[in-house]
Amino acid sequence: MDSMVEHGRAAASGEIDTLVQLVADDMRRVNEMILSRTGSDVQLIPEVAEHLIESGGKRLRPMLTLASAQMFDYRGDGHVRLAASVEFMHTATLLHDDVVDESDMRRGKIAARTVWGNEASVLVGDFLLGQAFKMMVEVGSLPALEVLADAAAVIAEGEVMQLVTAHDVATSEDAYLAVIRAKTAALFAAACEVGAIVADRGADERAALSDYGLNLGLAFQLVDDALDYSGVQADLGKRVGDDFRDGKITLPVLLAYGRGDEDERRFWRRCLAEQAADDGDLDTAIALMGRHGALDDTVARARAYGERAKHAAQGLPPGPHRLALVSVVDFCVGRTY
Amino acid sequence: MDSMVEHGRAAASGEIDTLVQLVADDMRRVNEMILSRTGSDVQLIPEVAEHLIESGGKRLRPMLTLASAQMFDYRGDGHVRLAASVEFMHTATLLHDDVVDESDMRRGKIAARTVWGNEASVLVGDFLLGQAFKMMVEVGSLPALEVLADAAAVIAEGEVMQLVTAHDVATSEDAYLAVIRAKTAALFAAACEVGAIVADRGADERAALSDYGLNLGLAFQLVDDALDYSGVQADLGKRVGDDFRDGKITLPVLLAYGRGDEDERRFWRRCLAEQAADDGDLDTAIALMGRHGALDDTVARARAYGERAKHAAQGLPPGPHRLALVSVVDFCVGRTY
Repeated sequence: MDSMVEHGRAAASGEIDTLVQLVADDMRRVNEMILSRTGSDVQLIPEVAEHLIESGGKRLRPMLTLASAQMFDYRGDGHVRLAASVEFMHTATLLHDDVVDESDMRRGKIAARTVWGNEASVLVGDFLLGQAFKMMVEVGSLPALEVLADAAAVIAEGEVMQLVTAHDVATSEDAYLAVIRAKTAALFAAACEVGAIVADRGADERAALSDYGLNLGLAFQLVDDALDYSGVQADLGKRVGDDFRDGKITLPVLLAYGRGDEDERRFWRRCLAEQAADDGDLDTAIALMGRHGALDDTVARARAYGERAKHAAQGLPPGPHRLALVSVVDFCVGRTY
Repeated sequence: MDSMVEHGRAAASGEIDTLVQLVADDMRRVNEMILSRTGSDVQLIPEVAEHLIESGGKRLRPMLTLASAQMFDYRGDGHVRLAASVEFMHTATLLHDDVVDESDMRRGKIAARTVWGNEASVLVGDFLLGQAFKMMVEVGSLPALEVLADAAAVIAEGEVMQLVTAHDVATSEDAYLAVIRAKTAALFAAACEVGAIVADRGADERAALSDYGLNLGLAFQLVDDALDYSGVQADLGKRVGDDFRDGKITLPVLLAYGRGDEDERRFWRRCLAEQAADDGDLDTAIALMGRHGALDDTVARARAYGERAKHAAQGLPPGPHRLALVSVVDFCVGRTY
């Protein structure tokens, strides 16, 4: 098992290396822009921002923007600003999410709200949104602004939707998919589409990239959900069971709950709705998911969205960038093994 | 004394009536737009939004946008969208502020966070920001987007600045003025300037309106600060002493602290820095402010900014709208009597 995991990790990381290499130069510019835009005389802002930046994450979203623009030989610097904007929107969402979820950890590090308080997380999140907005406007493309504004509104609506269904183990699968479509996949879609827009491409290529991004985002989130119950600690950037401890409702939970008997449902309600989970409960949760095939089916669903993403990519010009985008799908889905 | 108060109220309300009447038709369109943009299948969103909308407030900022566009005979509907955007930005800030301040009341009504929780306040605030962003983009004016994006970034930075100086009775006057310039006055300035932009006016008229709005915003905030310690309950839309109970640092406090002896400074530290105020302490605070002329001097400062606003208005075309803008200054400053 361990060696399979090792093998899977190597393979998955190979699958994202193509993308990483293609965008490496531009990504350096994005990182510089991120640093320069989190500068402020108000010391708390760079402090929180640097904490987040050092907490890492793969920066998948800005890489997608860069690749989507490069694919069409775009030569300006608009894609760098848009990529940084997308990352700021994402980071702001994480900050606000942590306040809402009362999470103590984020990407395996202590959450900003634990160090600086909820207040700082709310306000530094707003600061990052403001900077994102400024950078986008600087690019001067109304169609790109339209796509990102729509995404911002959809993400926020998805967040509220999630709040309403939070801790509700009887959430329907459709309702859950609507939440992750809004709160995760919409930004992936926008990140990809604005690359085509800044490179001045038409409706077909915009739609192909948006479609690719949306389905990749869905696959990405579902795999993330599964990893919380099956992942290898060091690999995750979060601890196994973080979602469980936060009482988060995810697809594996919904599947296990839906397929469970009355005793099992009581267990899920106690752990997630009432958030009264004890030490051994995570193991029980994982065992129940195994019994009902909840993780396998979640990953199967992710794989299906991944296939749709690859299919959408076929509407793009062939070449190294398209290959890289296809490989990213395998990377995202492959993270489970 | 009471009759002076009554008289002052009637006069002040007369001074805003001109503006209210000039923009009444467009304001109906703004209100319709606000309602239509807070609709969502996620029931919590209209619920929180309606609570805020019914909580009222004067809607001064959107009225300024409308008047600034009408002044130049603008005929489209861009000013309506921009006015609604400005109000959404303001409302989102209030929602996030309440979370940060842990306020239980807002405009004399129970705060949204008290009813629906901090989570809903954070996320519905984000939703309103997203909608504001969408509406602005729909207007299609990059210069207007630039002004509003700058304002959003400045406001957020001001909020963080305020968080850092929160409860610090030794904040300098300059630092305090920098905070209210960023968190209040910048949006007033932007609200006015975008009216000129959408009406396609040049740099001079934009600058005059921005300058007017900035100084009006400063005057407005300083009077608000003074009213918290001197206002007539029913007039305020908040209870006298709300700022004091929240431990908010405002100019009257800074002046009284700066002019107080060591005993008095201990009093201010206990009440505001340690937030350990008792029942009779508000009366003591008001008495100390009276002794040191802290309220009078705050209002004098507000009046000086008001004069600057009126002076800036002289750079605008004469007519009923300019007169209305000048009267609004008197209204804002006159609220104290």
